[in-house]
Amino acid sequence: MVVMFSHYCVLLLSVFSLTPLSLALPFEQRGFWDFGIDSDGGGLMTTMMRDEEEGSAMEEPSPPEFPMCPFGCHCQLKVVQCSDLGLTEVPKNIPTDTKLLDLQSNRITELKENDFKGLSNLYALSLVNNKISKVHPRAFVPMRHLQKLYFSKNLLTAIPKNLPASLVELRIHDNRIKKVADGTFSGLGSMNCIEMGGNPLQNSGFEPGAFKGLKLNYLRISESKLTGIPKDLPESLHELHLDHNEIQAIELEDLSRYKQLYRLGLGYNHIRMIENGSLSYLPNLRELHLENNRKSVWQGQATTA
Amino acid sequence: MVVMFSHYCVLLLSVFSLTPLSLALPFEQRGFWDFGIDSDGGGLMTTMMRDEEEGSAMEEPSPPEFPMCPFGCHCQLKVVQCSDLGLTEVPKNIPTDTKLLDLQSNRITELKENDFKGLSNLYALSLVNNKISKVHPRAFVPMRHLQKLYFSKNLLTAIPKNLPASLVELRIHDNRIKKVADGTFSGLGSMNCIEMGGNPLQNSGFEPGAFKGLKLNYLRISESKLTGIPKDLPESLHELHLDHNEIQAIELEDLSRYKQLYRLGLGYNHIRMIENGSLSYLPNLRELHLENNRKSVWQGQATTA
Repeated sequence: MVVMFSHYCVLLLSVFSLTPLSLALPFEQRGFWDFGIDSDGGGLMTTMMRDEEEGSAMEEPSPPEFPMCPFGCHCQLKVVQCSDLGLTEVPKNIPTDTKLLDLQSNRITELKENDFKGLSNLYALSLVNNKISKVHPRAFVPMRHLQKLYFSKNLLTAIPKNLPASLVELRIHDNRIKKVADGTFSGLGSMNCIEMGGNPLQNSGFEPGAFKGLKLNYLRISESKLTGIPKDLPESLHELHLDHNEIQAIELEDLSRYKQLYRLGLGYNHIRMIENGSLSYLPNLRELHLENNRKSVWQGQATTA
Repeated sequence: MVVMFSHYCVLLLSVFSLTPLSLALPFEQRGFWDFGIDSDGGGLMTTMMRDEEEGSAMEEPSPPEFPMCPFGCHCQLKVVQCSDLGLTEVPKNIPTDTKLLDLQSNRITELKENDFKGLSNLYALSLVNNKISKVHPRAFVPMRHLQKLYFSKNLLTAIPKNLPASLVELRIHDNRIKKVADGTFSGLGSMNCIEMGGNPLQNSGFEPGAFKGLKLNYLRISESKLTGIPKDLPESLHELHLDHNEIQAIELEDLSRYKQLYRLGLGYNHIRMIENGSLSYLPNLRELHLENNRKSVWQGQATTA
């Protein structure tokens, strides 16, 4: 298992991977660099280099003393915690039984085809607060059981393609998404919750069919550039949060599609007018938030209603 | 349950909490403000206000149709997900059976005494990326089973006092902690992992006894202002990460206390000198990272060793 951290070998003399305990003991250090000039004519450093070239580490006879874990990460109970490490790419050698992988607050720029290879047991993946602008169309393919994908605070300009069919929750707040194409979520019948606020989305950014196939309960498109209530969201929604947009009015039919809604957030918009009867389409509505809109005009409307 | 979101009532006329379905149906809207001027002489808005004043919501005969969940959050399977909501305080009405509470990326400035009241089942709490500078000394008391506390990216100047004895993992990267007082972690015998990098910690910032009582496996104090290897860390450490500091040298006895170490990260420091024999105290060491130090001087040392 000596080569497994070889991607950290920035400088030959600056990184050591020692052999497992069983081989390395008894350990009698003579001088710091003696690792590299061992009297057997090879030495650990040389062995490491040979392993790397020939891939012979796979034939290592002794199993490693400690479980595999990317350097710097903390691995425990199938949780691999690698946040705040300054990583510029997804680390190698993530244990294949990992259930939760936290790569939050690193400097990852891209998800490559094989970054998640073998991680078929992954249940939750956090990529929050990185610099990801590029996702290989097959990057998510290995994660056949992924239910939660946290992708907020990145540089994406589109929802990644080919999300796992197992996905239940997607959080992709604060990216640069301007457009949601037709069929973006097709095949994602288990999806329950999408949080996609903080993106520069206008109403025209949603192609007809953008949400096709989804049976969402929760959708949040806050802090965006919506000027009206989007027409084509899933009918199944129980909660719709559209606060901090530029919505001007609620017109009669705007909400007619969303009969299951029981919570609707429309605070911090520019709403001056709510057409009479527009809320009658929402028999289950329990909570409506309208704080910080164009109140003075409403009050006029209310008194004349 | 009508009053449970009353803290959102910024403006009386701008927030509605409707009664449960059983009371509100059949729902026949006449005008938008008719909620407040119902023909029974009271109306829902008036009822809500009365409930709020008298606390009579507790006597509400019908149980709520939908489970309690702070407005805007997404609650499912004992996970309460409230990230990126612009919250300025910990929301009320978090269900008491919550296991995981995610308050990441809000604008919370303070944890108050009763913020987590009743949350005795909480297992993991994320407060990452807020503006917390103040924590009430009793704020964590209710969370008797909390194992994971994620506190990175805040404005703390000290490790909070009275952390739950159940705690296993603390991540408090990127705060403003300059000092770790004697006994900070006392009573935290279950703690396994602390990540406290990204704080302006000098060696003198650790009072003798700062880590007393801890049996940590993993400790990271990266991206800080350490000029040497701290002397008083737990002897139990398997992994110690001190990369991105200003460590100048490894002297003979520096590592003698840490006999259990199998991973040691010292990359990105100012190390010019590693005293002969200093690593002989680490019989289990499998991986040592020393990239990006004062290499040229080392190489000189190596050839003359």
